[in-house]
Amino acid sequence: MKRTTSESKLVISEVMMPSQANVAGNIHGGEIMKLMDSTAYATARRYARSNVVTARVDELEFHLPIFIGDLVICTGQVVFAGKSSMEVAVVVEVEDLEHEGRKRALSAFFTMVALDKKARPFAVPELILETPEEETMFAEGKRRYENYKAKKKAARQKLTE
Amino acid sequence: MKRTTSESKLVISEVMMPSQANVAGNIHGGEIMKLMDSTAYATARRYARSNVVTARVDELEFHLPIFIGDLVICTGQVVFAGKSSMEVAVVVEVEDLEHEGRKRALSAFFTMVALDKKARPFAVPELILETPEEETMFAEGKRRYENYKAKKKAARQKLTE
Amino acid sequence: MKRTTSESKLVISEVMMPSQANVAGNIHGGEIMKLMDSTAYATARRYARSNVVTARVDELEFHLPIFIGDLVICTGQVVFAGKSSMEVAVVVEVEDLEHEGRKRALSAFFTMVALDKKARPFAVPELILETPEEETMFAEGKRRYENYKAKKKAARQKLTE
Amino acid sequence: MKRTTSESKLVISEVMMPSQANVAGNIHGGEIMKLMDSTAYATARRYARSNVVTARVDELEFHLPIFIGDLVICTGQVVFAGKSSMEVAVVVEVEDLEHEGRKRALSAFFTMVALDKKARPFAVPELILETPEEETMFAEGKRRYENYKAKKKAARQKLTE
Amino acid sequence: MKRTTSESKLVISEVMMPSQANVAGNIHGGEIMKLMDSTAYATARRYARSNVVTARVDELEFHLPIFIGDLVICTGQVVFAGKSSMEVAVVVEVEDLEHEGRKRALSAFFTMVALDKKARPFAVPELILETPEEETMFAEGKRRYENYKAKKKAARQKLTE
Amino acid sequence: MKRTTSESKLVISEVMMPSQANVAGNIHGGEIMKLMDSTAYATARRYARSNVVTARVDELEFHLPIFIGDLVICTGQVVFAGKSSMEVAVVVEVEDLEHEGRKRALSAFFTMVALDKKARPFAVPELILETPEEETMFAEGKRRYENYKAKKKAARQKLTE
Repeated sequence: MKRTTSESKLVISEVMMPSQANVAGNIHGGEIMKLMDSTAYATARRYARSNVVTARVDELEFHLPIFIGDLVICTGQVVFAGKSSMEVAVVVEVEDLEHEGRKRALSAFFTMVALDKKARPFAVPELILETPEEETMFAEGKRRYENYKAKKKAARQKLTE
Repeated sequence: MKRTTSESKLVISEVMMPSQANVAGNIHGGEIMKLMDSTAYATARRYARSNVVTARVDELEFHLPIFIGDLVICTGQVVFAGKSSMEVAVVVEVEDLEHEGRKRALSAFFTMVALDKKARPFAVPELILETPEEETMFAEGKRRYENYKAKKKAARQKLTE
Repeated sequence: MKRTTSESKLVISEVMMPSQANVAGNIHGGEIMKLMDSTAYATARRYARSNVVTARVDELEFHLPIFIGDLVICTGQVVFAGKSSMEVAVVVEVEDLEHEGRKRALSAFFTMVALDKKARPFAVPELILETPEEETMFAEGKRRYENYKAKKKAARQKLTE
Repeated sequence: MKRTTSESKLVISEVMMPSQANVAGNIHGGEIMKLMDSTAYATARRYARSNVVTARVDELEFHLPIFIGDLVICTGQVVFAGKSSMEVAVVVEVEDLEHEGRKRALSAFFTMVALDKKARPFAVPELILETPEEETMFAEGKRRYENYKAKKKAARQKLTE
Repeated sequence: MKRTTSESKLVISEVMMPSQANVAGNIHGGEIMKLMDSTAYATARRYARSNVVTARVDELEFHLPIFIGDLVICTGQVVFAGKSSMEVAVVVEVEDLEHEGRKRALSAFFTMVALDKKARPFAVPELILETPEEETMFAEGKRRYENYKAKKKAARQKLTE
Repeated sequence: MKRTTSESKLVISEVMMPSQANVAGNIHGGEIMKLMDSTAYATARRYARSNVVTARVDELEFHLPIFIGDLVICTGQVVFAGKSSMEVAVVVEVEDLEHEGRKRALSAFFTMVALDKKARPFAVPELILETPEEETMFAEGKRRYENYKAKKKAARQKLTE
């Protein structure tokens, strides 16, 4: 089975509530991280048609403060697919609903692993790349994934020495 | 100030969680109603650039059961705008992420009223209609709004007789 | 098995919290709708002694703003019972605890359907009517239910034409 | 100003949700304690017409397990009123909605203190006792309150010796 | 199997959020009670290595107001263990993170009962006492537990007379 | 003003609830990220004695699945302090309460910025380093912080070219 990158696109969006903010009215970074993870979870689950878990999250940088009442729009998209791993790019945009304009707030890559009902790795569809940009993203995702696997292997060897 | 119907479009989407379901795994109708109201709230608030409150909700019919893990996508759009009142059409689609396809689950009209910081009615932008379909929706929204106002007036007169 | 309308009466009441309000301190309409649905759910579930789901909600009009700290009292009562469908009338009263008086805020009719453990329609008790007022409510509920069924049938025929 | 015990009666009721239970489906004792405190808070706040805080809770014994889906009904009533302190009796009843009958699950006494906007003690209305039973409850509440005050005073003296 | 009192120690700690407070910014007593119950639940569950339920909570006195943003630290420790019952002492400390110092806010004893998967009483490990202070706490816990059992027995006899 | 690294240590711990898990019972990565952010927030806020916001989160790798009922213990510690920025190391340990042992699940570095009441950068205390290990962590934190600042500056220059 195969799927295109654009088919994998999925949006999660929510209005920020008082219970998600600190006393100064700023939304906690952790709330945004949770929303990004939900987006990666839903994107990967739909792509794989199976349960998935989060294995790794790339570096995150918060460029804009986000406030109570803002609309937060998270867009997920599978950019790399291995055997049972997928890399999902999550882009976060923010909109102050009472003023003009939507701004890009941050983005990150989530590595998700597909699991079957007995929690064993589950094979995911092959990713069809349609544009040169998608090919570049795939190559970069593959490189990140291989670095991560190599690091994990090294950590395991260290433990057994 | 003026805005088009298509400019007013806004999406709220969420994955349904175990805490939103009854013991049989069905999502409570009330959770969907709350999500629809959030969508109407955000759509009207962005359209009016002011705080808004819900005044009225049309009849709702649930055509499909919705389950834990489903993605629920609510799309709001202003279809009628009066002085400080707006009618927002909210369409709900549902997607079982581990199986094919997105289905229309239900829709409803929400009447929202714009308020300024002292809770007085606040004038909203004029709605620009671009297609015959938008003109039909506007006329229907206006009719519903006038019925609602007439009913409210009658109820008040009855109280003061 | 048979039950009276008055036996079916059930109350759900809650103090409104900051997490249920917009930035101006008004409780979101959606929170009240969710509470009304919980009341209809509990009332119908107790009446039918089975799981139930929401099929339809009548037009809703919010007459009073509701604020953080208010006590909201929802009273449900079965007013019509068919084979596996019930119509529950839900009345919402609001009380500002630091000032005198309880006020009627809104009311609506919820159509609930009883389901057995395999999600098939489940027969509900017959409704015993004890007063002329209950007989009127039953007749009105029956009429609304028949309109709703006729509309559903028409929608299905349209799809298969 | 004066109020009767029966005027002070207030009910908070809720259907227990999966998020309030342990893995075996039993509702956590802490959820019930939180609901009882909400009831005491609302009862005392309405009686005093001011903000209130919890100062003391009597011994609690859970006689019945409570499960997901049960309706929990908490009834609060002021049984003793001092200058700015009130004792609220909270009775908890439980009903398994799919089976017959409502059972008394537990009860406790909450000491609540009325505070003005600057968090200083605030005088509460005098309690009018209408029945011998209310007089007995008042006398018992007074005795508990005086014991509690004496214990607090002793603890303070010990600290300053 | 045996365990020491110090092995049983467990900490639950949380920063208080706006959704846990009344309108004046004070955290509801019920939120603290819920956190204490979670601590007793986790402490007893780890001690018994089985599911547990709350049977009884001792008198609680709130000595300090707790506010939004405070860190609340609950420490649980098994002080008495019978056949399937345990008494857990829960101490609550509070820290205003923007100012110096951690203060003891309150403490209470929770009686927890271990249950197996069929909800039958489950035998818990014997408690090893290592210091004279632990022996005193055990003796006091035993006395409280025996009073509680005697009271329960008396209540049952009264019901069957 | 000065503070030591060990003085800055702070623990947030919580038992995982059904509402934090996917349908297979695994806790969502996003819930753990949110808990880690709360820990970084509280640690930095106490260190700076001011409000703080999250600016950056390092790469995260989930080594162990976490399940409903597990105790999650997050320990935060300031390892680097600049003018108004702090780097907080957050270590996450997990304990299955019904079985032996606590395991290290993951760790990450959070960059937090102190803000005054008008949301301007606020000077934080100097960090006193007491051990060679703390000096190494400080040097690494400083390097990460300088890379991050250089990258931000480069991004800004690119925007203004």
